[in-house]
Amino acid sequence: MNQNKITEALREIRRGTAEIIDEARMEVLLKNYFDKGETYTVKAGFDPTAPDLHLGHTVLLQKLAIFQKYGGRVQFLIGDFTAQIGDPTGKSETRKKLLPAQIEENAVSYKTQVFKILDPEKTTVVFNSEWINPLGAAGMLELTTTFNVARMLERDDFDKRHKAGISISISEFLYPLLQGYDSVHLKSDIEIGGTDQKFNLLMGRHLQRSYEVGKEQAVLMMPILEGLDGVQKMSKSLGNYIAVADAPNDMYGKILSVSDTLMWRYYELLSALTLDEIDGLRIGVENGSLHPKKVKEALALEITARFHTQLEAQNAADEFQRVHAQSEIPTEMDEFSFEGPVWVAKVLVECALSPSTSQARREIKQGSVKINQAKIDDEQLQLEAGEYVMQIGKRKFARIKVS
Amino acid sequence: MNQNKITEALREIRRGTAEIIDEARMEVLLKNYFDKGETYTVKAGFDPTAPDLHLGHTVLLQKLAIFQKYGGRVQFLIGDFTAQIGDPTGKSETRKKLLPAQIEENAVSYKTQVFKILDPEKTTVVFNSEWINPLGAAGMLELTTTFNVARMLERDDFDKRHKAGISISISEFLYPLLQGYDSVHLKSDIEIGGTDQKFNLLMGRHLQRSYEVGKEQAVLMMPILEGLDGVQKMSKSLGNYIAVADAPNDMYGKILSVSDTLMWRYYELLSALTLDEIDGLRIGVENGSLHPKKVKEALALEITARFHTQLEAQNAADEFQRVHAQSEIPTEMDEFSFEGPVWVAKVLVECALSPSTSQARREIKQGSVKINQAKIDDEQLQLEAGEYVMQIGKRKFARIKVS
Repeated sequence: MNQNKITEALREIRRGTAEIIDEARMEVLLKNYFDKGETYTVKAGFDPTAPDLHLGHTVLLQKLAIFQKYGGRVQFLIGDFTAQIGDPTGKSETRKKLLPAQIEENAVSYKTQVFKILDPEKTTVVFNSEWINPLGAAGMLELTTTFNVARMLERDDFDKRHKAGISISISEFLYPLLQGYDSVHLKSDIEIGGTDQKFNLLMGRHLQRSYEVGKEQAVLMMPILEGLDGVQKMSKSLGNYIAVADAPNDMYGKILSVSDTLMWRYYELLSALTLDEIDGLRIGVENGSLHPKKVKEALALEITARFHTQLEAQNAADEFQRVHAQSEIPTEMDEFSFEGPVWVAKVLVECALSPSTSQARREIKQGSVKINQAKIDDEQLQLEAGEYVMQIGKRKFARIKVS
Repeated sequence: MNQNKITEALREIRRGTAEIIDEARMEVLLKNYFDKGETYTVKAGFDPTAPDLHLGHTVLLQKLAIFQKYGGRVQFLIGDFTAQIGDPTGKSETRKKLLPAQIEENAVSYKTQVFKILDPEKTTVVFNSEWINPLGAAGMLELTTTFNVARMLERDDFDKRHKAGISISISEFLYPLLQGYDSVHLKSDIEIGGTDQKFNLLMGRHLQRSYEVGKEQAVLMMPILEGLDGVQKMSKSLGNYIAVADAPNDMYGKILSVSDTLMWRYYELLSALTLDEIDGLRIGVENGSLHPKKVKEALALEITARFHTQLEAQNAADEFQRVHAQSEIPTEMDEFSFEGPVWVAKVLVECALSPSTSQARREIKQGSVKINQAKIDDEQLQLEAGEYVMQIGKRKFARIKVS
């Protein structure tokens, strides 16, 4: 009986993962949970300098939420220790010294955001300065005795930079060790992270062994989420992101803008629907019973509602519908130049939108004419210098420049 | 006027050195001393695990004593910080964890030994745990931001080991940084060390710059002292050493055992004689007015007196003279075998040391016969099984084996 539950849980845990290390251990943890109600800990580390999460970050959070469904207690780790360190060389943008008050503020902001996905009852927010500061200088030195230079240089990015002659600060060798030591202190059963974190995640296993914790964490790696363009990773600097703090309208609209392929990727990595439910949608689209746009709208609604309310999400959907219907402006249209001020009816005729000025005046009276998407009603309107999109009805457009 | 003093001081400071970095700064320090009486600091680091000094270690101490003659205040640094760290891998023999009481005991032992060379009034004994412990984990991480991996791997021994695939613990990257940080804290003006320490000594300059101490230490490197064999470096493990704690007789005898070439080397690196005085001795030997053995005896006497009293040194010289004169036994002599017990007179005849047993008995009565360098007086002596050196007078020897 419980074997079915374990199988089902493992299926959801495996969903969308890039790699799992020591799945056998995970299975044991699930078995102990279903058989004996024993919980286990799942660690994930977050950067204290960037509390402004985007959907890329929530891929991990969704997976943590899955673990919470199946007995996992989340160790939500804010890596504030390194935030205390300034960068004396002034070279690193990423190592700005944070004041304790800023870290605290960021932590509050994190909580606001992540508890939209995680169950606060099954989440402990921890700060690694709590146990790394007490290590002291001696503990730090001791930590560095556990690993050697050659193996550290095997880390993919270190290897590339070293071979390319790009500087690696010795402090960068300490970060994986510190991240691993967090797992020693927290006695984590599982750690999850991005594929780019594999080396550091495995360090947790190594150090739990070195420090004789009595267990070695299983590791689960999630892929990096693609941004709105569907190609590059979602990132703030690339501008292809959906922020958790985005307004409902923005969030809804951005999700609707993704390609159908990317939509399925987002379903896999971001939706709270089960795999069976998603398969149902996919079959519907394939056999033509569901329009892909409807499926995309459902995703946009689900995700918007997650970070706002259901009502706000629905309003965003309605608003999008309304604006979208109105704003169907072609990206290419004929362009004309005038010297201003110039009479609007004359413009409409010369742009070939209307056969005569009298016809143009009638269309203005009927409310069929828009300038820059806004209806006009003054048939004597003189256009001053500027650029305008002239429109009659739904299909006739022209771009004009009045000088 | 003072320029002459500076020139003279620099000549003694340069004496025997392998390399000096930033001699210009040293000259400024000396000028400030002679012109304005300003003192300056000279740092030298010592290992807290090995307080049993040999003459190799005293090469540095002699140089420190020279600096003390010319305005230098010695920072005698005991690197006790690392002694707190156990080696979790258990691989390193050099990193045994020392208890505070042991470190204190070693420090007392150091002082006893070094104040035979250094002026205690111009020496401060410091322990680097005093300022490295307070660095804490954060300070340690910050320290590691000041240097990069590629440059660390340029250190000669790291480079060789890395290329040979021999493991370098990451902690080993921290040691040069810690040694350099000592110079930051101590604001040292000069640091002296062995040529094998060049990288670490330069790290002091680098870190004084990084931490904006406002000065960069000059560096003076002494060569490694050759051991009694004159070839390999003096070291305990090679057994070719003279310990500072050696008894007067041992010390005196060991120095007399070195070659004439090595004697001049020891004069340069160990003697408190000035360069002019040593040149005087060298000229005397060259023109035949001084026997090299006399010059060697003077060195043995000087060094033995340094670590013991003048009287003890003189006694050691007298004792050496006496024993040496008595124990001139050739290393090669004829060998004979006998079945025991065998009459001593018969042995002397059969070894051709005496023409007849009656003559042999007379020589025993006269006290001319020795067995194993001890006079015998029993002309009826029967020799039991064993090996013996038989001797009549000063020149007749034989080795016998009685079975």
